[in-house]
Amino acid sequence: MKYLANFSRILRDNSAPTKLLVLCSLSSGGLIAYAESPSDGDRSVTKNPKETQKKRVVVLGTGWAGISFLKNLDISSYDVQVVSPRNYFAFTPLLPSVTCGTVEARSIVEPVRNMIKKRNGEVSYWEAECLKIDPVSKQIFCRSSVDENLVGNNDFSLEYDFLVIACGAQVNTFNTPGVLENCHFLKEVEDAQRIRRTVIDCFEKAILPGLTDDERRTNLHFVIVGGGPTGVEFAAELHDFVYDDLVKIYPSVKDFVNITVIQSGDHILNTFDERISSFAEQKFQRDGMEVLTGHRVMSVSDRTINMKKKISGEDVSIPHGMVVWSTGVGTRPVVKDFMEQIDQGTRRILAIDEWLRVKGCEDVFALGDCATVDQRKVMEDISSIFKAADKDNSGTLTMEEFQDVIEDIMIRYPQVELYLKSKHLFEVTDFLKDVYGNDKKEVNIEEFKSALSLCDKQMKSLPATAQVAAQQGMYLSRCFNMRKQCEQHPEGPRKFRSGGRHEFLPFQYRHLGQFAPLGGEQTAAELPGDWVSMGRSTQWLWYSVYASKQVSWRTRFLVVGDWTRRFVFGRDSSRI
Amino acid sequence: MKYLANFSRILRDNSAPTKLLVLCSLSSGGLIAYAESPSDGDRSVTKNPKETQKKRVVVLGTGWAGISFLKNLDISSYDVQVVSPRNYFAFTPLLPSVTCGTVEARSIVEPVRNMIKKRNGEVSYWEAECLKIDPVSKQIFCRSSVDENLVGNNDFSLEYDFLVIACGAQVNTFNTPGVLENCHFLKEVEDAQRIRRTVIDCFEKAILPGLTDDERRTNLHFVIVGGGPTGVEFAAELHDFVYDDLVKIYPSVKDFVNITVIQSGDHILNTFDERISSFAEQKFQRDGMEVLTGHRVMSVSDRTINMKKKISGEDVSIPHGMVVWSTGVGTRPVVKDFMEQIDQGTRRILAIDEWLRVKGCEDVFALGDCATVDQRKVMEDISSIFKAADKDNSGTLTMEEFQDVIEDIMIRYPQVELYLKSKHLFEVTDFLKDVYGNDKKEVNIEEFKSALSLCDKQMKSLPATAQVAAQQGMYLSRCFNMRKQCEQHPEGPRKFRSGGRHEFLPFQYRHLGQFAPLGGEQTAAELPGDWVSMGRSTQWLWYSVYASKQVSWRTRFLVVGDWTRRFVFGRDSSRI
Repeated sequence: MKYLANFSRILRDNSAPTKLLVLCSLSSGGLIAYAESPSDGDRSVTKNPKETQKKRVVVLGTGWAGISFLKNLDISSYDVQVVSPRNYFAFTPLLPSVTCGTVEARSIVEPVRNMIKKRNGEVSYWEAECLKIDPVSKQIFCRSSVDENLVGNNDFSLEYDFLVIACGAQVNTFNTPGVLENCHFLKEVEDAQRIRRTVIDCFEKAILPGLTDDERRTNLHFVIVGGGPTGVEFAAELHDFVYDDLVKIYPSVKDFVNITVIQSGDHILNTFDERISSFAEQKFQRDGMEVLTGHRVMSVSDRTINMKKKISGEDVSIPHGMVVWSTGVGTRPVVKDFMEQIDQGTRRILAIDEWLRVKGCEDVFALGDCATVDQRKVMEDISSIFKAADKDNSGTLTMEEFQDVIEDIMIRYPQVELYLKSKHLFEVTDFLKDVYGNDKKEVNIEEFKSALSLCDKQMKSLPATAQVAAQQGMYLSRCFNMRKQCEQHPEGPRKFRSGGRHEFLPFQYRHLGQFAPLGGEQTAAELPGDWVSMGRSTQWLWYSVYASKQVSWRTRFLVVGDWTRRFVFGRDSSRI
Repeated sequence: MKYLANFSRILRDNSAPTKLLVLCSLSSGGLIAYAESPSDGDRSVTKNPKETQKKRVVVLGTGWAGISFLKNLDISSYDVQVVSPRNYFAFTPLLPSVTCGTVEARSIVEPVRNMIKKRNGEVSYWEAECLKIDPVSKQIFCRSSVDENLVGNNDFSLEYDFLVIACGAQVNTFNTPGVLENCHFLKEVEDAQRIRRTVIDCFEKAILPGLTDDERRTNLHFVIVGGGPTGVEFAAELHDFVYDDLVKIYPSVKDFVNITVIQSGDHILNTFDERISSFAEQKFQRDGMEVLTGHRVMSVSDRTINMKKKISGEDVSIPHGMVVWSTGVGTRPVVKDFMEQIDQGTRRILAIDEWLRVKGCEDVFALGDCATVDQRKVMEDISSIFKAADKDNSGTLTMEEFQDVIEDIMIRYPQVELYLKSKHLFEVTDFLKDVYGNDKKEVNIEEFKSALSLCDKQMKSLPATAQVAAQQGMYLSRCFNMRKQCEQHPEGPRKFRSGGRHEFLPFQYRHLGQFAPLGGEQTAAELPGDWVSMGRSTQWLWYSVYASKQVSWRTRFLVVGDWTRRFVFGRDSSRI
């Protein structure tokens, strides 16, 4: 027993020297390995950052973007500090499952300190909220978010050489009155836990003696505003929770339960393939859920939700027991304030370039939901491109000259590639044929412009998803890791305006597909290559993808354990 | 997959007819079994309580006492309603483990509705707080404790024929100033969750840049007031949490951590055997925890805790980061109000007789922490006993006359048996020898009184433990189940004053032992028969007893799963 305990302790304690020691003690070379592990008490493994002149990187946020950046960053070359009010990373795609207890909140979170511990402790983490970014003096001002009863100053500032803003977004109410006061949201783990308690509250209240049937019906009317993936998944989870578990223990009120999804657009899941969207609508209809499309929410009170029918302009008002607001993302105050300082005050969301650098601010990067890539239009640079490509200054481009620059163009302006794809042109030469016509050998600037003029229409801003944030984090860490190398040997595309090359390749998003769980062990999925898959088998694909994407073995075991528990014992309805 | 799902659903759905159906379908007699299950839609299993004139039983509380009563009650003869602000039963002996995440909160709770569902739904449960008991009109007034945003009246009243008060106790601050505002308690699941978050808060605050060492030390000073089993177990759990898990992820502040246990008595665990008490003190000392015995807490502020040394009267004041108050139990307001109505207003705690009936109030029973058995003294009835025993009215008792009543005496006044045991007299005849001397054949009333006069000193009030509450619940349900039978054939001891017999045997507590986990996989235990066991093997005994005592297979799996998880991955330090 004792040996097992010690061994598991050693395994948990993931520091490299210990691991080495364990491994080598198990083989025969224990002595040599021991000699190699740090034996001198005074010789600290962590060198003083100032001595080694490491660049100081401050990361704001521990969500998908921040953690993906941290996990892949080579911390031997940077002095890294992380600031976030949440001392854990949450696997947000499973938040809708947490709202109904299909998965427990603790199963989808991993402490940040556990994750940085594995990096030998050279990363510091502070549980605090960043209140202000000062890009001039290159420092940020933070305030600890912990209980005020404790002693010591809550405020501190950190200086940075590079700042990585990955603090995510906040709820966007579109200034609809009453939303903040009367709606639930689904952005944080605490939100999901609160929703879970409220669902139980609604049932416990509705079943009390002395209520009228109308009152019971109102209390058991669950409204979801927003027919995006999160709203739809929550509606599906709630439906399963109610009909798999709750109706059995609240049998007398089961006929009063109603679930309504309100969507301002014409269809729910409208970012998905049309087949998925209509499959979802049909499934919800079969399940007895109401889907109100084309309704715009005007205000929410504590008792009713007031809408306008888009087509007729008619006002509709329905009583509710609980409203979950799940539409769009908004900018956090600290980012808004920062945007005003760097002349982005008029924008709705922080603009970054294709290298995830904040526009108008040196050494500050932003990624994830808090920023959007402001993709450069090819038409803005069209003259420079033409000029750079026209090596012989003839005023026209030959096919050879064009072929010489097309790769750089496609890297620098990914919309060109998207345009090619949309036209089903798979070879650059096809594109050239299109540009040059079949017999033309050269084009002038006007013909060149008109050929590329349609490309910019292919530009789409990236969705605010975990997938984008994680890819951006990984991309940025690569840039940081290759900084010295790329300073000397730039890997990026040609700079058509100023000459030379960009240091790094720009960020490119690779869409790996998207799931929409619809309840009742049915899931719809958009897979790479425009594949669409729906039904029970896709639910199993969903299980396996989500299990494999967990950030640690611990959460993987816990999540799979929760699924099993739900399957065997159902969901827990205790109000805690 | 589908079959498995259906099968698991059937298994979960524990209603007896379905179970029968499944069992019989699996064997060959499916058709017959089906015919026996209720087939007529109109013939409801639940009969209208008013038609059948079932007695209405209202139970307040869903803790150990209430649930143990409900689980064993024969609901075919009663119309049962349960009122409790918590819609779950919590396995409170594991609360200290929840404070540090050794076990998750959800793993130790079981929804009340799940438990009553298994009883075929003839029990109603309302999530509400009982605000007032009116013993004259025989009704209680309740208020729902759920969110106020929902529609419908929160107040309702219930009429009862029998009322079972099992609402437990509240924290007892002994009117110490500042305790309610600045201390944590350990009575509810929410308390344990709050403590867990606060421990992490203390660490996150202490590690922030810019704090002095003294500030870090203050924030990491954890104080436990009360050296009883709960306080000691929490201190031990906290020590394990800190040194097994937290020091690894907060390495820079590990030297600032201090844990102090304050006890007003001379020893911690002073209700346990002396060997256990000193073993615990030694272990805590080895572990570097401070045990301040003989200190009385005078007041608690947000920053310091102020005590008086009992011996010297000296004032001591120490700064703290967190205080957990774990001393004694107090009476809830609703019980206090009820006591005033039944002339028990001057008492500290509700008095019940040996049959768990509230003194001075018909048809109201109280059990668990909210009441205490007011054991009848044998000396109060000594004349009546003598008179009843002296059949021939000779003014003296012969040995035969005495033997005739001794059994009833021992049942009615259990202190007599305790006295016998304490004198190591195992035979009643030994006791008689003692009373009569060796050659005396008869005793008069004065000699009889003097022989029994020492027995009442053996009376001890029962501790406020889960074990007592559960046994009382089970006892009371037996009385309810046997009501009709015992009305006709009383089973209780002779009524010495009024003649006849008591309907039921009085409640008798059987102490099955007690555990005191001390951390580091070490537990001390007091086992039946004055056995004392300490160490690692006792920890395994603890694991198996606590696993077996779980109220459902679900919680049993979850608790064992949590222990395994803790063992493999350690405890989670996410602040949620």
